[in-house]
Amino acid sequence: MLDGVGDRPSKVLNGLTPLQAARIPFINGLARAGMNGVIDPVAPGVPVGSDTGHLSILGYDPYKYYPGRGPFEAIGAGVRLRAGDVAFRCNFASVDDNDVVVDRRAGRIGSQEAGQLVESLSEVKEIDGVEVMIKHTVEHRSVLVLRGEVSDRVSDIDPHKDNLPVAWARPLDESREAKRTAEVLNKLLKRYREILESHPVNLRRRGQGLAVANMVLPRGAGRMPNLPSLDSKYHLKAAVIAGAALYKGVCNTVGMEIVEAPGATGTLSTDLNSKFKTAFDALRSYDFIFLHIKGTDTAAHDKDPLTKAQFLEKIDTAFSDNFDPPSEEFIVCITGDHTTSSLTGEHRGDPVPVLISGYGVRVDHVSRFNEVDSAQGAMGRLRGTDLMSVLMDLANKTEKFGE
Amino acid sequence: MLDGVGDRPSKVLNGLTPLQAARIPFINGLARAGMNGVIDPVAPGVPVGSDTGHLSILGYDPYKYYPGRGPFEAIGAGVRLRAGDVAFRCNFASVDDNDVVVDRRAGRIGSQEAGQLVESLSEVKEIDGVEVMIKHTVEHRSVLVLRGEVSDRVSDIDPHKDNLPVAWARPLDESREAKRTAEVLNKLLKRYREILESHPVNLRRRGQGLAVANMVLPRGAGRMPNLPSLDSKYHLKAAVIAGAALYKGVCNTVGMEIVEAPGATGTLSTDLNSKFKTAFDALRSYDFIFLHIKGTDTAAHDKDPLTKAQFLEKIDTAFSDNFDPPSEEFIVCITGDHTTSSLTGEHRGDPVPVLISGYGVRVDHVSRFNEVDSAQGAMGRLRGTDLMSVLMDLANKTEKFGE
Repeated sequence: MLDGVGDRPSKVLNGLTPLQAARIPFINGLARAGMNGVIDPVAPGVPVGSDTGHLSILGYDPYKYYPGRGPFEAIGAGVRLRAGDVAFRCNFASVDDNDVVVDRRAGRIGSQEAGQLVESLSEVKEIDGVEVMIKHTVEHRSVLVLRGEVSDRVSDIDPHKDNLPVAWARPLDESREAKRTAEVLNKLLKRYREILESHPVNLRRRGQGLAVANMVLPRGAGRMPNLPSLDSKYHLKAAVIAGAALYKGVCNTVGMEIVEAPGATGTLSTDLNSKFKTAFDALRSYDFIFLHIKGTDTAAHDKDPLTKAQFLEKIDTAFSDNFDPPSEEFIVCITGDHTTSSLTGEHRGDPVPVLISGYGVRVDHVSRFNEVDSAQGAMGRLRGTDLMSVLMDLANKTEKFGE
Repeated sequence: MLDGVGDRPSKVLNGLTPLQAARIPFINGLARAGMNGVIDPVAPGVPVGSDTGHLSILGYDPYKYYPGRGPFEAIGAGVRLRAGDVAFRCNFASVDDNDVVVDRRAGRIGSQEAGQLVESLSEVKEIDGVEVMIKHTVEHRSVLVLRGEVSDRVSDIDPHKDNLPVAWARPLDESREAKRTAEVLNKLLKRYREILESHPVNLRRRGQGLAVANMVLPRGAGRMPNLPSLDSKYHLKAAVIAGAALYKGVCNTVGMEIVEAPGATGTLSTDLNSKFKTAFDALRSYDFIFLHIKGTDTAAHDKDPLTKAQFLEKIDTAFSDNFDPPSEEFIVCITGDHTTSSLTGEHRGDPVPVLISGYGVRVDHVSRFNEVDSAQGAMGRLRGTDLMSVLMDLANKTEKFGE
């Protein structure tokens, strides 16, 4: 999985995309030996996030299963969410004595101080039988997870603008769980407030005339859905290798074990040799390895198509150098979760190329892996949610519909 | 938008389609510089009308949004329909003293006389608080529009056969609006009857022994749906340039302004130079111009593939002569709303070619724009409803789903 691998042509690359411009003989060889196509992660012209894109390409329709930002932010922070958990994104904020939010970002408090505050808050483990987890992410941001008989039908506590009062949580439906969640949340935030008011970090900030971080403002409640596991769908022992927590988390949520590759960072300077070597080693113990490489997306977000092309060449070399299939019955698939345009630095809705190569896979006339050549392959244009079925069927792991 | 541009091969063109046979170097150059594909306006093998085809290609699923013939006939007659308006197609008919329809088309009364009759009928502006509009179209046909608290759940007044009694309107559901609409409609038609019986046109016809047009028979009630505007979907300032009222009307209904091109007639003798020049001028003031050209469809309805090919060559020349993009970040799309077969003169369900060319658009290996070459392009085969998303995404105007 080459994150954000699809792109648009750019002048820097003489009107080519990074994939078209890169020298990737090994990957092109796989394209030549297999079948090719393009994938709309969700639908033509619909730009997706890494979260919705991954859900879809793992076979889970995000229009049905995507629980919103909160849960995926928590997964990205390394929280192992369970089905039913309700997660929120949170800001540290400054509030005055009348509960009016005077600064939604607490003077953009730095990661170090915010981390210390969250560490103290995380001592609150439970409110009225509901399990509580809070985890710092970056700067004034953190994630809050409630586990138990809770609901995501609660209003945002964040008023979304400065100089408005704290919007204490209200239930958004008539259910017992929503009412209870709002009560627990309000009680928890008052507890947090007490801890924060007297916290050494805030005493120091107050002394220095800085905005204090004396309130936590949750928003975007989302409930983690019950995703049927890959194992239940395909009887598959699967694992994920990735640098960034989000991808490990999503894959773990659908039942993959996490295999750590030394030096995998989720950046352009990740240890690609380690990742490929770890992947091929793991194929001795698992049926399916999901190997995620983030740098392609990062370079495009930086509007740097040349670096994206060069990184693709490094991937090609590392893949080739470490290529070591565990058996003759090996199938490899290469694709992306979405297009990231090096022109704008944004995710866009263009389709991404896909290749599948190996045992029992049809061989078409395509000899290069990119946005244009792959589209002429025998796979045509597919939806993201179809890919896992196609792969599992090639591995003879699907069940017949009908007799 | 080249109306009915898709076609089937014919002997007259040595087994080629009009697009394959035409010399269209400019359009082929755009194909070569961009990406290509084919579109099923609604679904493979489903022939669509100009109304349903346009709705779909503008991004509105006609299975969800198409209100039937009445409203689109009214739009085609130049009535600016609002959401909620109920429209009917109508015939002038001859009825006897017992309300039996003796001629459903009033002796196929000519356009001139029928126009005079409708002019008198149009003086009735309101019945019981419901606003009434009637507009003549052609020969014995006109459209009737009711505006207010009305419903389209009313039965046809037209008995659909001669020698049956007038089928006075009945509500088709239990709603207050349906009951009221039936009452208003019956009251209105009796008013019309009075005006028609004593109208000079009918006195003259009676004197000449011709069938009198003493009744209006509405049918096909349809309620104009609330179509979310292009602006609300994509934050887009858009305009339409077209000869025929139907296309201006449909585009106006989804929020496009109407820009008039001098000499645009919606026929084979339209002023193509004026239309292209007006379009490129308008691109200085609008984000998106929808340019509609009708002649391709007309020639195919006349079963004249040679004229269709020649008209395509004229389009190519006019497009080339007036091509004047407003900026480097210009994107052009060429497609059709459906296939019109020059063999049968009918709309058919074959896919239509599509090309998109310009800033940030992938460049594939296709070098000709037609039903066969375009199908080998990087876009593959899309549904009509996907096209606007694809275009708006290429213009970076779509919103990300997920994070």
